[in-house]
Amino acid sequence: MKKIGIGIIGMGRIGKIHAENLLRLPGANVVSVCDLYAGDELRSWAAERGIPHVTCDSADVLARPDVDAVFICSPTDTHVPLIRQAAQAGKHIFCEKPVSMDVHDTITALEAVARAGVKLQIGFNRRFDRNFRTVKANISGGTIGRLHLLKITSRDPAPPSEAYIRSSGGMFMDMTIHDFDMARFLAASEVEEVYAQGGVLIDPVFGKYGDTDTAVVVLRFENGAFGVIDNSRRAVYGYDQRVEAFGAEGCVTADNEYPNTVRTMSAGGVFRAKPLYFFLERYQDAYFEEVREFVECLAENRPVPVDGRDGLQAERIALAAKMSFQQKRPVHLKEVPAWPT
Amino acid sequence: MKKIGIGIIGMGRIGKIHAENLLRLPGANVVSVCDLYAGDELRSWAAERGIPHVTCDSADVLARPDVDAVFICSPTDTHVPLIRQAAQAGKHIFCEKPVSMDVHDTITALEAVARAGVKLQIGFNRRFDRNFRTVKANISGGTIGRLHLLKITSRDPAPPSEAYIRSSGGMFMDMTIHDFDMARFLAASEVEEVYAQGGVLIDPVFGKYGDTDTAVVVLRFENGAFGVIDNSRRAVYGYDQRVEAFGAEGCVTADNEYPNTVRTMSAGGVFRAKPLYFFLERYQDAYFEEVREFVECLAENRPVPVDGRDGLQAERIALAAKMSFQQKRPVHLKEVPAWPT
Amino acid sequence: MKKIGIGIIGMGRIGKIHAENLLRLPGANVVSVCDLYAGDELRSWAAERGIPHVTCDSADVLARPDVDAVFICSPTDTHVPLIRQAAQAGKHIFCEKPVSMDVHDTITALEAVARAGVKLQIGFNRRFDRNFRTVKANISGGTIGRLHLLKITSRDPAPPSEAYIRSSGGMFMDMTIHDFDMARFLAASEVEEVYAQGGVLIDPVFGKYGDTDTAVVVLRFENGAFGVIDNSRRAVYGYDQRVEAFGAEGCVTADNEYPNTVRTMSAGGVFRAKPLYFFLERYQDAYFEEVREFVECLAENRPVPVDGRDGLQAERIALAAKMSFQQKRPVHLKEVPAWPT
Amino acid sequence: MKKIGIGIIGMGRIGKIHAENLLRLPGANVVSVCDLYAGDELRSWAAERGIPHVTCDSADVLARPDVDAVFICSPTDTHVPLIRQAAQAGKHIFCEKPVSMDVHDTITALEAVARAGVKLQIGFNRRFDRNFRTVKANISGGTIGRLHLLKITSRDPAPPSEAYIRSSGGMFMDMTIHDFDMARFLAASEVEEVYAQGGVLIDPVFGKYGDTDTAVVVLRFENGAFGVIDNSRRAVYGYDQRVEAFGAEGCVTADNEYPNTVRTMSAGGVFRAKPLYFFLERYQDAYFEEVREFVECLAENRPVPVDGRDGLQAERIALAAKMSFQQKRPVHLKEVPAWPT
Repeated sequence: MKKIGIGIIGMGRIGKIHAENLLRLPGANVVSVCDLYAGDELRSWAAERGIPHVTCDSADVLARPDVDAVFICSPTDTHVPLIRQAAQAGKHIFCEKPVSMDVHDTITALEAVARAGVKLQIGFNRRFDRNFRTVKANISGGTIGRLHLLKITSRDPAPPSEAYIRSSGGMFMDMTIHDFDMARFLAASEVEEVYAQGGVLIDPVFGKYGDTDTAVVVLRFENGAFGVIDNSRRAVYGYDQRVEAFGAEGCVTADNEYPNTVRTMSAGGVFRAKPLYFFLERYQDAYFEEVREFVECLAENRPVPVDGRDGLQAERIALAAKMSFQQKRPVHLKEVPAWPT
Repeated sequence: MKKIGIGIIGMGRIGKIHAENLLRLPGANVVSVCDLYAGDELRSWAAERGIPHVTCDSADVLARPDVDAVFICSPTDTHVPLIRQAAQAGKHIFCEKPVSMDVHDTITALEAVARAGVKLQIGFNRRFDRNFRTVKANISGGTIGRLHLLKITSRDPAPPSEAYIRSSGGMFMDMTIHDFDMARFLAASEVEEVYAQGGVLIDPVFGKYGDTDTAVVVLRFENGAFGVIDNSRRAVYGYDQRVEAFGAEGCVTADNEYPNTVRTMSAGGVFRAKPLYFFLERYQDAYFEEVREFVECLAENRPVPVDGRDGLQAERIALAAKMSFQQKRPVHLKEVPAWPT
Repeated sequence: MKKIGIGIIGMGRIGKIHAENLLRLPGANVVSVCDLYAGDELRSWAAERGIPHVTCDSADVLARPDVDAVFICSPTDTHVPLIRQAAQAGKHIFCEKPVSMDVHDTITALEAVARAGVKLQIGFNRRFDRNFRTVKANISGGTIGRLHLLKITSRDPAPPSEAYIRSSGGMFMDMTIHDFDMARFLAASEVEEVYAQGGVLIDPVFGKYGDTDTAVVVLRFENGAFGVIDNSRRAVYGYDQRVEAFGAEGCVTADNEYPNTVRTMSAGGVFRAKPLYFFLERYQDAYFEEVREFVECLAENRPVPVDGRDGLQAERIALAAKMSFQQKRPVHLKEVPAWPT
Repeated sequence: MKKIGIGIIGMGRIGKIHAENLLRLPGANVVSVCDLYAGDELRSWAAERGIPHVTCDSADVLARPDVDAVFICSPTDTHVPLIRQAAQAGKHIFCEKPVSMDVHDTITALEAVARAGVKLQIGFNRRFDRNFRTVKANISGGTIGRLHLLKITSRDPAPPSEAYIRSSGGMFMDMTIHDFDMARFLAASEVEEVYAQGGVLIDPVFGKYGDTDTAVVVLRFENGAFGVIDNSRRAVYGYDQRVEAFGAEGCVTADNEYPNTVRTMSAGGVFRAKPLYFFLERYQDAYFEEVREFVECLAENRPVPVDGRDGLQAERIALAAKMSFQQKRPVHLKEVPAWPT
């Protein structure tokens, strides 16, 4: 079987994670890595792993005939131009979320992808988490009957830097977008209306940029079910990632993951260690799995599990949430630009 | 120590529960019970328990000099007149929730109580649940730091009858009112704004009366924290009563209560019995505790733990929730009539 | 329905617990209480509860025609003579465990009971615990198939006083005897062989009296299953009472009971309160239940749920365990005196 | 840094697992694999992984100058001769458990290792499990104070084949040996006395070979603590691997690992999936970790974490357990041949 040749654009933390996972896949061949600041460190990192080509110029990657697909792991503002160039070059694309901060731009990128007939997968890694997958299987398998309510808790262990906050696009676009995707994934229905509440309870720096650090979002799905998402930028006990789906015939929950199963009992009480620290620990397997499935879909010419429309819809919901928060009213998804049909 | 003489008005299920609990209290003396339909059954029930007086007329109860306090357990529309008469007669009052369906009426009743200088406790029994009490102690003790988010799940195991639905005042006033009280109790802050979403997902009969069977309510507290309540009229796995309080320094949760600690593991998986069926099972101890504290407060002439203002505030939030649901917008508590100050 | 008249001999802690529980039973009438040191305190305690007769002399209790049954809650060395006298007087008997420290004496008492045709229930309260009952129901209901292994953990929160230790008959007769009864109850099979290991790891005072404070006992049942009991006189985290039954088709476990369902998560980890402190807390309901069933069995003239032979068998296993510990070898139950057949 | 050259002798399931893990280690180089039945399949398996040398003759592996260490994964009866040959050839050794079925033979092998001054690690993979490691850290860190009792549950999901049973050396040497090592590891003390009970409750085939399928073993440690191990060849709900360490200041437990954190609640109760199926799933990470540490110890010339004496001691306890089971009495470790001192 021919190996899929991969080029990676953007070799920060997430670019390297994808690279390591791709290196474990017998069906993939990492042939080129690109970073604007590629230097000796990246070169020796690549050499140790047998990656033959390192460049500062993404055009080099796209020009290589041995590159079948590119991973776009560079800053968000580069996603749309890179998607368009990659599509034009006939490369399949794996792009980190969000595609862009602007729904119109995202639509432009998706149109380029559609024209080129290449595949585009968005990096919503949580869909590949073993727990959420099992929740999904329970819902679609009928365990809880018709869905009535979906609850998603998503809290980070520590806030990002001020630099990150400034260019993040705000909590809804940067953080809640994962939960919007999870909501659509689990509910198997589109979001119809959004109501978002938010506040600055952790650090005034969020307020400085008109952003929030704590939020509650209520969703109404087209199938009549409701959704509630709660977010915090700082849960001191670690990454808190849980879902609960309640329906006519029952309820299914996915709890956090822990570093071990050990409990101690002493005169002070019963104790266990706090949950896994952050997304790298919690979603380690999910990161591998999303990349494995992407490569498999290319090899077998199947549709990718999270496509461009999934990316667009999550962005639209994020935008509606932002509008709701700013205008202090529920916002219907129809108020947000959509893919032309 | 002189025993507190008690009369009970309304001898349905909840009236009898209060009676049984009062009978276990050395400091209380149930001297009279009253029910519009008092007959042989109630007479023999009272006789077996050594309760000397049974009547169909509440005025008989209020006229007795050996009655220090009355329990008002009759239908909601009788609460206000009975509170006024009891206050006028100088009796302390324990009244089931809600005081009334109309905030103005409730205020009238509270004014009568204030004029008479008697004590009035509202039957928000969940405040006395051992689990929620421990959550409260953790919050007020500083375990989780400043409160950011309060989540309350409150789902009944089965919907009430159509007759009940018709006269219930709607889900927010009938069911969520308990959660509104819990929210104020745990947050130790007043609610400032309410947004309510609801739907008819379980039984069309709710829709027939303009009511909902499934609801999500978002609260904003004066202290800046947020609250989320989710309700369902039917959780097939039993009464689902949980809270989660998240703050700057941690998170505290109270889970459901189970009939036992037994788990079985077989080829099919790991299994435990579902939670306790409904409020009588779950809040059995809480019902005793609220009555014990009421009697103790009378004996020691201390303020009661849940007073008329607590009843009023929960009603005001319920009313705001109903308005929000009907008008599809967040409603500020200022829009709802308040106690004149 | 005629009420069962009850006399209680021995009004220490356990005598009073039984009295309080009997007072809650509509079918029972506590007509007389007896304590060698009965004084003003006991008299006023009885008066407050409407118990008409208080005496220092157990003969007074047995002489009363309104006493149908006696509760023997006095020190162990009085059990056999009191059982014999009560049987002779035609009274039904509820006796605390153990019947005696000497298997021959116990047999004598049982013979007197058999001759008189009265009922005798032994105070193995744990059989009435909601958790162990559910385990029993799972085993007898076939959930785990044929039993292979039964594990019982039974640890006290704090060691007794030296005075208690001196006259306790040793850990196996005083503490493990409850577990021997639980083993027979759950396994539904007689114990055939016992191997006991023990040590003095907590306090040298146990060694002073040839006793142990830590023990492990292996049982072989007649049905081929094995049992393991572990005991400690001091579990600093509270009363540790768990069982696990493993069989051909699965495993069933009963965990400890906790004061609430609350968990806190903070930077230090996840925490919950330790289990209920000791037997009064853990077995509160079980104490009520054993007395309720005893009275019901008398009223309906049914066999009691824990009879004299159950008391004898637990003592025989305890004796075998003691022999095994002292002689450092497995001991067959045949080596211990049995009920003549 | 020079890579450690590795040869693997015996390419069955466990040989391949070690190979795959070694291939993930930057510091290791798998240069040769050997299997008596090496054929095209193994050759192409090796080729795909870039392993240059495949042979049927273990002497070929030992003769290679680029082999620094050998993994002995062949049948147990080949361990002693291969250890001796490898030691003579100056190769470090990783050997699967047990070293042999005969304590004298094992001692001979250890002597050869000592003479040659090479390192020998025994494949007690469970020491590297994240849960048991945390238990160990709690014990040695003082969380539970002085150890009083150690409980190990170790049950397989399904019995092995008759062919395996016949040559397994019996349950104590084949299966419980892992628990004996775990006992020594956690207790940090030598075992002094053993009492073993066993039966044939699952399949008569075990009895055919004088073996047991269900066992309970009581240990007395030199430090005064006690240990209890329970084993079964068939737990229908999956691999059951738990430990509990109880001491003067508390208790620490390690529970099983589960495939996910999902729970479903329905009218039938609360359900979660059964534990991970067997050792490959449960100890996947532990297998990687033991190999990683072995290679690291060679690279840094440090003592290995589980040495030959650890292998010998576990065998001696297994032998004592077998004697105890056959002779129906406790057996002192002094009765079993020891390493000459």
